Amino acid sequence: MDTILNVLPLDEAQRQAFRAAAPWAEHIFRPTSDFPNSAMECPPDEFTNATIVVGCVGPEFLRKCPSLKWCQTWSAGVDPYLAPGALQEGVMVTSAVGAYGQSVSEVMLASLLSLMKRLPAYRDNQHAQRWADTGRVKTLRGETVLLLGTGDIGSHLAELVKALGARTVGLNRHPEKALHNFDELHSIAQLDDYLPQAGVVAMSLPGTPETAGLMDARRLALMRPDAILLNAGRGSAVDCLALAQALQSGKLWGAALDVTEPEPLPQGHPLWDCEALVLTPHVAGGDHLPCILPNIVDIALENLRRYHNGEPLRNRMR
Amino acid sequence: MDTILNVLPLDEAQRQAFRAAAPWAEHIFRPTSDFPNSAMECPPDEFTNATIVVGCVGPEFLRKCPSLKWCQTWSAGVDPYLAPGALQEGVMVTSAVGAYGQSVSEVMLASLLSLMKRLPAYRDNQHAQRWADTGRVKTLRGETVLLLGTGDIGSHLAELVKALGARTVGLNRHPEKALHNFDELHSIAQLDDYLPQAGVVAMSLPGTPETAGLMDARRLALMRPDAILLNAGRGSAVDCLALAQALQSGKLWGAALDVTEPEPLPQGHPLWDCEALVLTPHVAGGDHLPCILPNIVDIALENLRRYHNGEPLRNRMR
Repeated sequence: MDTILNVLPLDEAQRQAFRAAAPWAEHIFRPTSDFPNSAMECPPDEFTNATIVVGCVGPEFLRKCPSLKWCQTWSAGVDPYLAPGALQEGVMVTSAVGAYGQSVSEVMLASLLSLMKRLPAYRDNQHAQRWADTGRVKTLRGETVLLLGTGDIGSHLAELVKALGARTVGLNRHPEKALHNFDELHSIAQLDDYLPQAGVVAMSLPGTPETAGLMDARRLALMRPDAILLNAGRGSAVDCLALAQALQSGKLWGAALDVTEPEPLPQGHPLWDCEALVLTPHVAGGDHLPCILPNIVDIALENLRRYHNGEPLRNRMR
Repeated sequence: MDTILNVLPLDEAQRQAFRAAAPWAEHIFRPTSDFPNSAMECPPDEFTNATIVVGCVGPEFLRKCPSLKWCQTWSAGVDPYLAPGALQEGVMVTSAVGAYGQSVSEVMLASLLSLMKRLPAYRDNQHAQRWADTGRVKTLRGETVLLLGTGDIGSHLAELVKALGARTVGLNRHPEKALHNFDELHSIAQLDDYLPQAGVVAMSLPGTPETAGLMDARRLALMRPDAILLNAGRGSAVDCLALAQALQSGKLWGAALDVTEPEPLPQGHPLWDCEALVLTPHVAGGDHLPCILPNIVDIALENLRRYHNGEPLRNRMR
């Protein structure tokens, strides 16, 4: 029999849905709002017996589950679980990719429009009780938005900016596959060719060796001087020191980051002082929009059914 | 023969378009970027001879044009020209309503999304070098947006929020007339019934005796405690002291104002200190988006043709 250790913050109806979806298993519910360290508080027995873990328990704790067969994470990014030796051999990991697209893309859009209309400067003026015009603004209408990454977040963002009148150009590894809401799709290998054309460059790439340092000083210099850079994938994909320099020397209109490298951004980092920056502390996803938890529950319930029926799991990452 | 005093900041191609549209008139171009006081710098002769003024020359200066027959303003709101005795009898005034809808509605949307995602608080945290989660956010998807005023600005805003998944309820004086992008239309007389239902209340009303003080303390108290108020019509339509009190006592999620009463907002006004406020200094229209001036030119050219042909003028306000 499987034992499912479930650390999601579920209400009773949601627990009941898990029991109904997997009547063949024992369900242990250990909700906690502090997911990365949640497993610390679980009694050892529950680790010993768990064959399935639902929710984010760090790999260092999952290694203490000798019977573990599968972990369904709460997060969309699962890079720590994929590192060599992070988990015992044969343990499956499925992510919650698909649960965050709406939430993250909406924060990206809000940050983008805020920069286009100079709202950060108006916020500063408000604190100074200064009634002052800060000049020309930008519009998405007719603008080209270049999306690096066309997955859950990228395609949600493409839908939003397209609805507001933008032209969407997506870059990914499989541009031959048609996708909704993209006017054009090209290979990410052509990044340098497309960077100079875009008024907005929106990054939602996973943390992999290929994406680390992708937007470096050289590529930032390829962007239009009136362009805006967005990153809500992984902080490692942007050289944050080079970006701070570009912003402070006025080589971009602005940037919006929900992720940085490192995180949290350390005291004294030059990004803190960048006027044309919208900075959110990796909160675009999280549990900040009420739809997210139900989305994760749906993915987990579907995967439990697939698991029981011996079908391939959704979002399988290892 | 007519003499057209044109104070718009036109390029040569636009001047040529005016000459071509009204070859029957003498054209005097006196561009200035300071419209309300622009007429100060015009030589007296040009006032004496002008039969048509294009652009915003204040009524106090228009009164000095003894031959004046018509003024085509640069602004959408023309309340100063409509005050009793502001202009000589028989002088026509046409506004630039229609030129600003895109620009103003986009600033309203940017301000709204910024509040929904708590970006003002994150801006303040950035200045404090504080990497801190500020909690739950909101989404337009599935939210009810109540639009007070369904003209150029209101209908543009309805289109934008509808594209992002909101339900749009418009209130105006002629709800029987169907309008695009509104899921429902009702009489502005039913305002008190609809206020408690909306997550967003968006005001784009002209400055008239009927709209003065419309959103007073009593009506603010009818709004949902998690609702957001937007105003980009006239500042007089909102009791700004009552709004500051509501914001400071946490009775609303937030507010975004592009207009206030009075303007500029005086030093020490309690609105300056409201954390959950996005304040822009009457810049949502202006000339901040490149499309606006061409829009105004189009309206003026069409009206010159109508004027010459004896047809009713567009946007005629008196």
